[in-house]
Formats: sequence, structure tokens, C-alpha cells
Amino acid sequence: MGEISCSNGISQANGADAKNVALTGYRKSCWYEEEIEENLRWSFALNSILHTGETRYQDIALLDTKPFGKALVIDGKLQSAEVDEFIYHESLVHPALLHHPNPKTIFIMGGGEGSTAREILRHKTVEKVVMCDIDEEVVEFCKSYLVVNKEAFSDPRLELVINDARAELESRKESYDVIIGDLADPIEGGPCYKLYTKSFYEFVVKPRLNPEGIFVTQAGPAGIFSHTEVFSCIYNTLRQVFKCGCCALFSSYSFFC
Amino acid sequence: MGEISCSNGISQANGADAKNVALTGYRKSCWYEEEIEENLRWSFALNSILHTGETRYQDIALLDTKPFGKALVIDGKLQSAEVDEFIYHESLVHPALLHHPNPKTIFIMGGGEGSTAREILRHKTVEKVVMCDIDEEVVEFCKSYLVVNKEAFSDPRLELVINDARAELESRKESYDVIIGDLADPIEGGPCYKLYTKSFYEFVVKPRLNPEGIFVTQAGPAGIFSHTEVFSCIYNTLRQVFKCGCCALFSSYSFFC
Amino acid sequence: MGEISCSNGISQANGADAKNVALTGYRKSCWYEEEIEENLRWSFALNSILHTGETRYQDIALLDTKPFGKALVIDGKLQSAEVDEFIYHESLVHPALLHHPNPKTIFIMGGGEGSTAREILRHKTVEKVVMCDIDEEVVEFCKSYLVVNKEAFSDPRLELVINDARAELESRKESYDVIIGDLADPIEGGPCYKLYTKSFYEFVVKPRLNPEGIFVTQAGPAGIFSHTEVFSCIYNTLRQVFKCGCCALFSSYSFFC
Amino acid sequence: MGEISCSNGISQANGADAKNVALTGYRKSCWYEEEIEENLRWSFALNSILHTGETRYQDIALLDTKPFGKALVIDGKLQSAEVDEFIYHESLVHPALLHHPNPKTIFIMGGGEGSTAREILRHKTVEKVVMCDIDEEVVEFCKSYLVVNKEAFSDPRLELVINDARAELESRKESYDVIIGDLADPIEGGPCYKLYTKSFYEFVVKPRLNPEGIFVTQAGPAGIFSHTEVFSCIYNTLRQVFKCGCCALFSSYSFFC
Repeated sequence: MGEISCSNGISQANGADAKNVALTGYRKSCWYEEEIEENLRWSFALNSILHTGETRYQDIALLDTKPFGKALVIDGKLQSAEVDEFIYHESLVHPALLHHPNPKTIFIMGGGEGSTAREILRHKTVEKVVMCDIDEEVVEFCKSYLVVNKEAFSDPRLELVINDARAELESRKESYDVIIGDLADPIEGGPCYKLYTKSFYEFVVKPRLNPEGIFVTQAGPAGIFSHTEVFSCIYNTLRQVFKCGCCALFSSYSFFC
Repeated sequence: MGEISCSNGISQANGADAKNVALTGYRKSCWYEEEIEENLRWSFALNSILHTGETRYQDIALLDTKPFGKALVIDGKLQSAEVDEFIYHESLVHPALLHHPNPKTIFIMGGGEGSTAREILRHKTVEKVVMCDIDEEVVEFCKSYLVVNKEAFSDPRLELVINDARAELESRKESYDVIIGDLADPIEGGPCYKLYTKSFYEFVVKPRLNPEGIFVTQAGPAGIFSHTEVFSCIYNTLRQVFKCGCCALFSSYSFFC
Repeated sequence: MGEISCSNGISQANGADAKNVALTGYRKSCWYEEEIEENLRWSFALNSILHTGETRYQDIALLDTKPFGKALVIDGKLQSAEVDEFIYHESLVHPALLHHPNPKTIFIMGGGEGSTAREILRHKTVEKVVMCDIDEEVVEFCKSYLVVNKEAFSDPRLELVINDARAELESRKESYDVIIGDLADPIEGGPCYKLYTKSFYEFVVKPRLNPEGIFVTQAGPAGIFSHTEVFSCIYNTLRQVFKCGCCALFSSYSFFC
Repeated sequence: MGEISCSNGISQANGADAKNVALTGYRKSCWYEEEIEENLRWSFALNSILHTGETRYQDIALLDTKPFGKALVIDGKLQSAEVDEFIYHESLVHPALLHHPNPKTIFIMGGGEGSTAREILRHKTVEKVVMCDIDEEVVEFCKSYLVVNKEAFSDPRLELVINDARAELESRKESYDVIIGDLADPIEGGPCYKLYTKSFYEFVVKPRLNPEGIFVTQAGPAGIFSHTEVFSCIYNTLRQVFKCGCCALFSSYSFFC
């Protein structure tokens, strides 16, 4: 009496199983999935999708991920994640600024996320940082969402310019102690391609460096296979223009391959 | 002059590929993934995660999905999706209400989503609907988010009660023209198990039905394999208590298996 | 002494976790994944990939899956799975053959898998079955791998022809008691499109049916949304050519949507 | 005349779409998926599953993958892949053997895959290699499937022993120029845990090293976060037993995190 009629006895077992699942929890269900290359992808669990949108230049999304905290995705590629963006940005900024005897004026090509500016502004010698990014919407987006860069965005030493970095550098008279390229990889036809060429380095960047000035750029992954994608090209190009150079390798999640 | 030095020629090809990817778009990246059973799962693309939370009784999430619109997920299982929830709710409500000569008073066990009430309230004969769900948070959640049920929730004919449906029915003196079970499946140890038993049907439901009253319940999937999970059990149990019964089968996404 | 030096104590915890994972098992790792539509996919766990290949007409794979047993995948779509192919093939064959007073000669358009022939050959009245499939490699493939159809393929009543079904029917003088279309869906530009047209039914199929002859065809999924894809079109076309017709709906895994 | 009757016009569009999909190809469908950690996984496309099995000690699978070639998976974790296993094995072997003035006798703890032996045997000074792995089935499996190690397995300088490496070293009288640990990570309760302890290094390994002998071990990933898992522990343990030590870092796909 008072039971459910399971003529076949299957539900009994099923009930037990189901209960078990209910009690021990089920798999996390929302995932971000990125195709690293055609036959290779990685996925991470999501807490939420904070924002998705499309700017004039690119698709952007801000995700709250379980393994990496907040993550910025541009054109379907993870750009930067809360948990380890410092690795990339510290490596990009501090060797150059520590190497320079007295870095006062800095020019950032790109860097709309604000993290490169944040690291630069930690140096007390710095008096002026020009950050020149082409995509106003990404900048506004990061300003609103990336709490960790709030302070940097409101630092009076930061001058924020929305423009193509090449055009901006060409139009400026002043020169800088350090110029930093915090750009997307040089994809033919992509917006940043011209910011990695020999002529750009020679005729635009070099003339805007003060004596003892330093130029530093991100150069993509430098793995045993992946270095051929962009790293070696950029390195070879730089060597033709600048006398001495060194490269520092580091690893973070967003540079998986 | 002015080019990127690719000593190995690889980047050239890579650049072209990459451009191609950029121009033709990349795969959608945020997915909801559900394990239907141990070795079988399905996934659908997400626009956003509208809400996730935990009530006293269950985990809930409201997702904005690309293929199905807004979708309600409870304890990791898709419950109801905007695009096809009407199939389930219409099938649950209308045959019974059309079959009854003059349905005036209705009692819904569960139904916190509000869609069953919405369908019932379309019948002009209906004077009173009692909807009794145990989980206040799910009800509040659906009230806020499910625009399509807004009107139903504010209909003066609807009396919303937060209680265990069994306790509520036992405590009430009045009886009803139609009683509808819009509940989760009877999982042993789960909150709804007792609402599918022979004794419940016999001693609680039947006495609360008016003459010519009709009882209808959801009974899980009725596929060629899946009917053994709960459908046949519920059907066999019902047959022992109620004289005549019929079952209607239909299919919607949330009843995939 | 004799321990591993974990100055930070992290490995200890990690060790315990890892052990736990090792003891309680890890998730199954090989999966077949199919895009049902752009934003919806399903996946099932694999035991092994028995065969993959490319014929003149299509890509084929035979997978050994955990939830469904052996599964035949053509052009990336699950066609048929061991555990439930009988639902499709029985539904396709038996209503027609039982309805016919004395079915002796049968013509199968397509059906290279062999399962339709298998079901037909169960009828003792049947004296001759012509199975006409265009893709010799799929037929050979199924002959070798699908143990369940071994007997059918070697039944002396079966005549196997590799040809386009339309050309074959046109070239033949004899007519048949039952003609069965066990074909892929009518995709414009696809190999089977012409085998679903009004002119084909009228001028090729109908003249090859004996008096009291029956024509039956698969017609794709007939769900509340999916029927518009091909089912309703085929049904409407058939109604213009054949006097009486009925359709039977059923569900199996490969007809998910 | 002769067309398919699509009263709603939907099939037309659908046909075109479907054709498009058929012509432009569909997504690859078989994938290997590994949970790197709870909320993070990576997947790569499969050509085939060459073998899966269970030995006394572990689950093993040999997969033919699209991005990495043949890949050995033990207990659900990618161990080694054709395309980049040389990075791991060359880094493990050559620094030690090149550093030693005249390496003649080598003892490998583990290394059942055969690749470590293969690299060692490239050194012409080497007269004897003892490779001691506990899992005979893995060894046999790799012998049969890993073509690249065929020659090494049949080299007369290789002595293959199936035993626990500790027991084997303790029972042997002779000592070695180089001892190499090519083992799984030290998981508490796992089979290799005892081969990473201070007492093992001090009382078993050290006494079996010739004067000028070198001990080298794999030590897990050494990333900015992941080094705490096992690398730092092993490094700290080694420092207590051996006077001088250095570590080399490298990256390959199987050491993703």
C-alpha cells in the first residue's frame, strides 16, 4: 500500500541511481569552449557571462570563469584572465622600466584593457603614460568591468587616446623613454599587422624614442612549435632595426599554445 | 622593406589562415552541457546566464540559450524552455479542462514556473486556481524572470500557496474539479516521491475531487526505452486507484530521452 | 626521514586529491560529437572507432558507442545504432508487409545497411527482395561489420544491385508487391533528392507496383517543429500521387530532432 | 511537376542550408577529452582508438589523434604524444649523459614506453641500459605499438626487467653511471610515491651511483602555479640528499598545466 507500482522493478534501481546523482551532485554545466586550432580545443567552466558585444573592430566578451576568474575574450580567443594576467603584464612592463635608468614618459600602443598602464603606474619615476588604443568600446568596457584597473584608469598621469597607434605616434612631436607594444598578434589583414613591420619600427617607433629609450613588444607564444607562428618573425624583424635586444619567455594560461 | 621578417615562411601561411578564420567567424563559445545519462550528453549554445542560485530544495539556473530561448534548469536538468514549454503545458492542461463539462476550481500540485496556471487561466469557466509549490524561491524567481507568465501570476483568480502539496490538500476542506500534478519525477528520496504513491492518490487526491472531477499528472517520458523509468510505474499506480484513465504522449526538447 | 619535502604543504593535499581521483575513477574520455543544428549538439561516449572511410558518395564511420552499441555515421550524422535501429526498420517494413494480403516481391530503394532487407526476409511469403543501393562501399562495409545482418545478406532470396534506384526501376520490366524507400532525406543537390519528387512517384514508382501494391518511404522526423523540414513535404507530395496513405510516427535515438 | 510539395516553403531553405553543410563539410566528430582539473578540460580530435585496456596497475589507451599523432593515455591522463614526446625524453636524458664524462651503465626506473631507453642508446659510450618497469602489460603494449621505439627495444645493450624499481635497485650489487627516474608523479597511495622520498634517494639511489654518477628524475610541471603540485617538493627533497643539482624546464603538450 502506498507504493508506486513498478511491475518491472526497473524504476527501483533507477530511483536509487537518480537519488545518488542528486545527492552527490552533477557535473557543472556551463562552459566556455575555444578552438585553439582546428583539432584542439579547451574548455573552462563558467559562473556567468558578464557581457557580450560587438565593437566596430572586434567581438568582445567578459566571462566569469571558475578556474581563472574574470576573463576577457576577443574574437573568440581568450585574451586575459584575472588569475594570471599579471604574469603577462608584469613581464611586459617591469624588465623595460627597471632596465631604464629613469623612465618618465611612456607610450603604450594598444593596451586598452588597462593592465599594462596599471603596472607602469607602479613606477614612481613615471610622470606621463600615453595609452593609445583604437577600440573605444573595448576601453570603455574594461574601464567599467575590470575592478583591478579602476585606479589606473583614473590616475592623473594617464592620458587615454582613441586612435590608431601608428597615426598617433606619427602626429606627435614628443618622444618617450619607453614605448610598449601591447597589441594583438600580427595577422595579415588584421588591425595590428602594420604595427609589427620593419618600416614601422624604423621610421615611426625609433624616432620617437629618447636617448637610452627602450622599445618592448609582446611577440606571441615562443614554444618549441609555436614560436614559428609570430615570435620568430617579430624577433627577426626587431633585430634588423634595434641594436641590442633580449627576449623574456614566460607562460600563462592564455598563452597555452 | 617594411615587412615582417619570416625567415621560414611559416608565418605567411599562418597569417593567411588566421585572417581566414577572422573573416569567416569562429565557433560559438559558450555552451550549456547536460549529462542525459552517464555516456550521453547534449549541449546548446548560450547567449547568457541570466541567473544561477540555490534554494532550500534545489539548484536553479535561468539560461538564455540560442536554440531554445530562455531555459529553466533545476538540479542540472533542463526543465522547461521558452520555445517549446507550451507543448508540455498545453498537453498537461487542456485535455483535462476540455474534457470536464464545467471546470471551475483547479488545484495545481507544484507548477511553480507559472506556465500551468497560465494555460488553466485561459479557460473562462475557471473561477479559482490554487497553485501549491514547496519552493518559494523558484516561484519568486519565475515570477521575476518569465515574462510570458507575468499576467498569470497577477491574475486575481490565482491563489498561490507555498507548502507541500500533500499537506496542503490534506488540510483543505474544499474539493476541486481538476487536480493537476506538475511535479518533478518520483525519485526515491526526492521531494516529490510521495506525490506519486497509491495511498496518496487514494486517500488524499481522490477525496478532494468533485463528482466528475479529473486528476491529471505528468508522468515522465514514454519512449520505447524510457517509459520504464517512471511512466509505466505511474500509469500502473494510477490504474489501481482511478477507474478510467488515458494518457497522451507528446514530445518536446526537454523530454529528449 | 624518508618523506617528500613539501615546504608549502600543498602537495600533501594535492596528493590526497589525486589519489581520490585515481581511486574513484575519472571521466570517460573518448566521445563522438554531432551538431544537430548550429547551436545544438549531442555527444556519446565511445568504446572504439571501428572504421572510418570515404566512399565515392559519402563519408562513413562505424563507431562502437557506450550508450547505443555499434553506430553507423554517414556524413557526420548518426544513421543507425545497434540498440534501436530495429525501431526504424520494423516500423518501415512491417506495417506495409502485414497490410498487403500476400507480399511476394519487394524492391528496396537504398537500404544498403541491410536491416530493411533483414526485416522483410522475416516474412515467409516473400520470394524475392531486390535491394538497390548506389554506394557499393557502404554495402560492403555493412556486410562486413554488421553481424546482425549477416544472415540477410546471404539469404538466397536477396538480389543485391549497385545502381541508382531510379535508373534501376526504370530499366526493369517486372513490378513489385511492395516498394520501400529507405533513403537519406531529400536534400537539394544531394543524391536522393530525385527519389522524393512527384514525377518520380508518378512515372517511375507507381507503374512498377502490382495491383494492391504498396509504396512506403521513410520521411524524416515528424516532430512538432521538425516536421516542416522534410516530413510534411514528402507527405504532401505523396498525397498528390497515391490515393490513400497513412503515416506512422515513432521515435528512436537517431531521430532525435 | 516533378517537384517536392513544400506547402510552407521551409524545406526549400532547409534544403539549401543542408546542401551547404554537405558541401562545406561538417565538424570533426570524434574527440578525446581530458579533465585537467575540475573546471578545465581540453579535447583533441581523434582519427582512431588504437587500443584500450586495463593492466594490473593502470588503465591504458593508445589513441591516434589529429593534432599530436599517436598518444599514450594512462589512467585518463595524456602521458606522451608522438609529435612532442621527444621534448620530454631528450630533456630527461641528454643533459645528464652529456654532463657525465663517460656514461657506460644506465639504470632507468620506469620508462616502460621505451622512449627514454631510445634516447640513451643514441650515446655510443653506453654499454648497458637496465630498464625496470613494474607494469609488464604497458611495456608489451608499447613494444607492439610504438614503431619509433622498435629499434630500442631490440637493442642488445638493453636489459628489460619487470619489477618494482626500488626492489630491483636494492637487490642489485652493481652500480651505475646514471640513474634516471622516468616515473609517474608522486601521488600518495600511488605506485611511484616511494620512489621520490628522501630515504629512497639516500639509501637506495645514492649507494648505486658510481663516483661521478648522476641521478636525474622527471619532476612534474614547473609552471608559475603548477610547480607547487610536485616540482618544488621533489626539488626540495633532492637538495637534502644530493650536493649539487640543477633543473631544466621545458614545455610540451602533455605538460600543459
